[in-house]
Amino acid sequence: MEKVIIADKLGLFSEYWSPKIVGELNGQHIKLVKLKGEFVWHKHDDEDEMFLVIEGVLKMELRDKTIEIHKNEFLIVPKGTEHRPVADKEVSVMLFEPASTLNTGNTENELTQHKLETL
Amino acid sequence: MEKVIIADKLGLFSEYWSPKIVGELNGQHIKLVKLKGEFVWHKHDDEDEMFLVIEGVLKMELRDKTIEIHKNEFLIVPKGTEHRPVADKEVSVMLFEPASTLNTGNTENELTQHKLETL
Repeated sequence: MEKVIIADKLGLFSEYWSPKIVGELNGQHIKLVKLKGEFVWHKHDDEDEMFLVIEGVLKMELRDKTIEIHKNEFLIVPKGTEHRPVADKEVSVMLFEPASTLNTGNTENELTQHKLETL
Repeated sequence: MEKVIIADKLGLFSEYWSPKIVGELNGQHIKLVKLKGEFVWHKHDDEDEMFLVIEGVLKMELRDKTIEIHKNEFLIVPKGTEHRPVADKEVSVMLFEPASTLNTGNTENELTQHKLETL
């Protein structure tokens, strides 16, 4: 059993939109991801998803509003809710979600990551 | 759907060893708790438990070692593992664990919190 130092894990990768698994518990994954630019609109039919901002500002676009999430703030996007993460500048985010969660949800495209790396 | 500002939630309470629910997803609870002093040795037979330190230093005593967890670091304690949180000074921690988790696990005593407040 070892603790996880978030900054150390973030130092191990630089690519955007490619979540890395840094922990697993109760069938849930803890992931770290760096975001920059605009993602794709998508939803997860079966999984709620939590976005905890570690560094930077994440804009979560929803169909009816946009929520700006700053460092040490989090948002839970319920299953079935269309959303699109947007980052004007680089942002580092911790995700909590079931191990089954596909990053692009119901919208498979070139951003879809089927096999995630564990750091 | 609203974001959660961790600092704001922490400002709503001051008591120690009394986890507050600040989010729920996929049958899991996100809790905030302030710790100071020594807790009781316990384990959770069915739940893994994640401790993410928001402020301060948490010492997690295990039977074979002690792990110091600082701000922006986390530890996952697997189910069945005896552990005892100790905080020499006040520490604020985010917990990620199944909604079924009892704070004192298999060791019910005066610290046991059966009904948690939601903030």
